[in-house]
Amino acid sequence: MDITEFVAQSIGQWRSQRSAHHLAFGHFEAVESEIDIMALAVDDPAVIDLCKLHNVDPTQVVSPFRMTWEGQSDWEENEVIKGTCVLVPIPDPERRKCGRLLRDQGYAEEIAAIGDYTLTEDGMFVLITPYERAAAEEKIWFVNPNVRCRVSLIKTSAGTGVVTASFSSEIRQGVKS
Amino acid sequence: MDITEFVAQSIGQWRSQRSAHHLAFGHFEAVESEIDIMALAVDDPAVIDLCKLHNVDPTQVVSPFRMTWEGQSDWEENEVIKGTCVLVPIPDPERRKCGRLLRDQGYAEEIAAIGDYTLTEDGMFVLITPYERAAAEEKIWFVNPNVRCRVSLIKTSAGTGVVTASFSSEIRQGVKS
Repeated sequence: MDITEFVAQSIGQWRSQRSAHHLAFGHFEAVESEIDIMALAVDDPAVIDLCKLHNVDPTQVVSPFRMTWEGQSDWEENEVIKGTCVLVPIPDPERRKCGRLLRDQGYAEEIAAIGDYTLTEDGMFVLITPYERAAAEEKIWFVNPNVRCRVSLIKTSAGTGVVTASFSSEIRQGVKS
Repeated sequence: MDITEFVAQSIGQWRSQRSAHHLAFGHFEAVESEIDIMALAVDDPAVIDLCKLHNVDPTQVVSPFRMTWEGQSDWEENEVIKGTCVLVPIPDPERRKCGRLLRDQGYAEEIAAIGDYTLTEDGMFVLITPYERAAAEEKIWFVNPNVRCRVSLIKTSAGTGVVTASFSSEIRQGVKS
């Protein structure tokens, strides 16, 4: 699987159940959300802007997309968690299964971030993103075309300690009409 | 990583946080447990018995172990979940990173079971176990020597639908004194 196929499989609306384990305290958090993943044109202004921000040549962009989410955590019953972010893959010209992923909103911290991805031999997308005070390691894979799993770890910036481990199971909600 | 190294890294006492997502209902279940993984001798009677049960030559056994767990679910506050099981890897003589895993208690069903494992290039242990009415697919990997993640999927026996997706984060509790 290459990045184009991986993104193509991800496009759509998903219902997500996410459990976060806050390891130091042994706490569980449960989040339910709707996730919308939409393909963007390679010349979408948001894509071009993100390339400029990271000093990346926009002709190298492959399969950019926008992810939008809205949900609720059992920690903050009355608060809606929502957001949107633009993600732009830049494949490594020499190694087809690796590359960089630009995003305009980070996962561990709400700043623009740039991560390194690899697609493994068994079709798993692995993304490592360093932040100022933390590092995120994500693994995403398809169980079948309509079920996607995602494990996200937030580590200390030195990369040794794991602060939060979270798991999402995502079920496709059918093509948007 | 081969099976010997994988089992050696797993030996010890672990504190586990497990979240199960019951996908059809969107339910979350939280389980906290202690897991003890102990090396067994290749000629331990429990190992030999399990080989006999599955008609496997006991000289092919590598790194057998016993797993014992005790915990509590938020679904059944007053009930203790506990159990023990013997696991016996039988590496494929031709392909070093693959093999079969015998167990005397199944995960999806409480019967003896035999699964197929693969260790991927990035050190993930992937186990597929068919049962009578279901199939289990597990992925286990080390984030560092003291943190282990495990994703377990229970699928319909046809292998297409996912019934339960669960995630465990396991933290080493130090060497048993």
